[in-house]
Amino acid sequence: MLRFMASKVRLYVDHPLGVGQSVPLNRDQAHYLFGVMRLGVGGVISLINSRDGEWDAIVEKAGNKGGVLACQAQTRGLQTPPDLWLVFAPIRKERTAFIVEKAVELGAARIMPVRTDFTQSANRIRTDKLQAHAIEASEQCGGTFVPPVDDLVKLERLLADWPKDRQLMFCDETAIGAPVRLPVMPGPWAVLIGPEGGFSPAERDKLRALPFAHAVSLGPRILRADTAAVAALTLWQQALGDWG
Amino acid sequence: MLRFMASKVRLYVDHPLGVGQSVPLNRDQAHYLFGVMRLGVGGVISLINSRDGEWDAIVEKAGNKGGVLACQAQTRGLQTPPDLWLVFAPIRKERTAFIVEKAVELGAARIMPVRTDFTQSANRIRTDKLQAHAIEASEQCGGTFVPPVDDLVKLERLLADWPKDRQLMFCDETAIGAPVRLPVMPGPWAVLIGPEGGFSPAERDKLRALPFAHAVSLGPRILRADTAAVAALTLWQQALGDWG
Repeated sequence: MLRFMASKVRLYVDHPLGVGQSVPLNRDQAHYLFGVMRLGVGGVISLINSRDGEWDAIVEKAGNKGGVLACQAQTRGLQTPPDLWLVFAPIRKERTAFIVEKAVELGAARIMPVRTDFTQSANRIRTDKLQAHAIEASEQCGGTFVPPVDDLVKLERLLADWPKDRQLMFCDETAIGAPVRLPVMPGPWAVLIGPEGGFSPAERDKLRALPFAHAVSLGPRILRADTAAVAALTLWQQALGDWG
Repeated sequence: MLRFMASKVRLYVDHPLGVGQSVPLNRDQAHYLFGVMRLGVGGVISLINSRDGEWDAIVEKAGNKGGVLACQAQTRGLQTPPDLWLVFAPIRKERTAFIVEKAVELGAARIMPVRTDFTQSANRIRTDKLQAHAIEASEQCGGTFVPPVDDLVKLERLLADWPKDRQLMFCDETAIGAPVRLPVMPGPWAVLIGPEGGFSPAERDKLRALPFAHAVSLGPRILRADTAAVAALTLWQQALGDWG
């Protein structure tokens, strides 16, 4: 599936990209390009910055501690995902990283970890690490957009400040007979995935009472939180997103 | 999502389950129950065997090298998934294990690894290890059925022997404009996921020519093979499976 992996090295930079634009590299980027990927002066890579699409760039200077790339030509325009947030409770470290990777591949516009009543306190997150996972996923899957990863907030707080025009799809494994299809409502949406252990009764009651919240069933089997995240994003993209 | 994790220990055994049925434990099972899970004589666990549903069983004998359980009562009947095969090309070890885990959670009836033209020869599989992953996934997610994992076969060979009444959904990332929805055809199905690198042109031509094969698009982004597997199983279950 991953044809981009075989092709040009792709690198995300937090720097404008444009014709003749010169892009300085930090130590980590230089190590990756020149140390790990063995590129040298004259080598060509693809750059993305989440704003200007994908650009070919040529290595002008290559050093151990840095380097300089020169933008040449845009190879693809910016492809932004639909206005879909993924809101999820952190689980075990590697599965949380997995959820972030999959959210990028499946086309979420923003990734928002939330603490719920049943979120294990052991499941701390490092936002910077999760953001790095999002960047790597976009680099590896040929993306031109990297969704921002927010800091952890309490679900209660998030719902209190919720934008009223944004629909919320929540996957409630206790909602026997909940619809398996989303209401066809255009506009901004969010997908909410509970922690292992599900939502607390109080959270469930609150969610069910919210006018913008829609319970959706993910079938008769119990899904891990990471599986539920991928399944829910898939159903949303097919029903309301850009998969059509 | 995983309420079962918090509840009774669940164990798959290759042994009949029924009222008064006595179930001997091998060394590994004894180590898990008595060493790892610290159960002793009188402890109660849940047993599954992929045939007789879920049964409560009580520990009658507990030793380092074995033990005996006594079946008490059936707690749930056998829940078999729809007649859906997951056919996939092995990828990197941990992602192959992941695909097996997700196939069990999402309700595949049979898991079939295939070698395609672009399958990396480095991606060898150990069928016994993958079967163990399937068992663990079913134990952990409250399943009563464990899909069999077949040995690796060549895709060409599999298609040559293909049962003509079984539809095949294949996810072709080059099929621009392919439908995102499945044709509503009842009966047995299979989902086919290519390797990273996709199908070879020859494979793609062959698949497109098969009367029982249906190309489905998984959206405009490039998905890893493991993501594509979860997304495809989700779409099938919602459209034709038991999620309705």
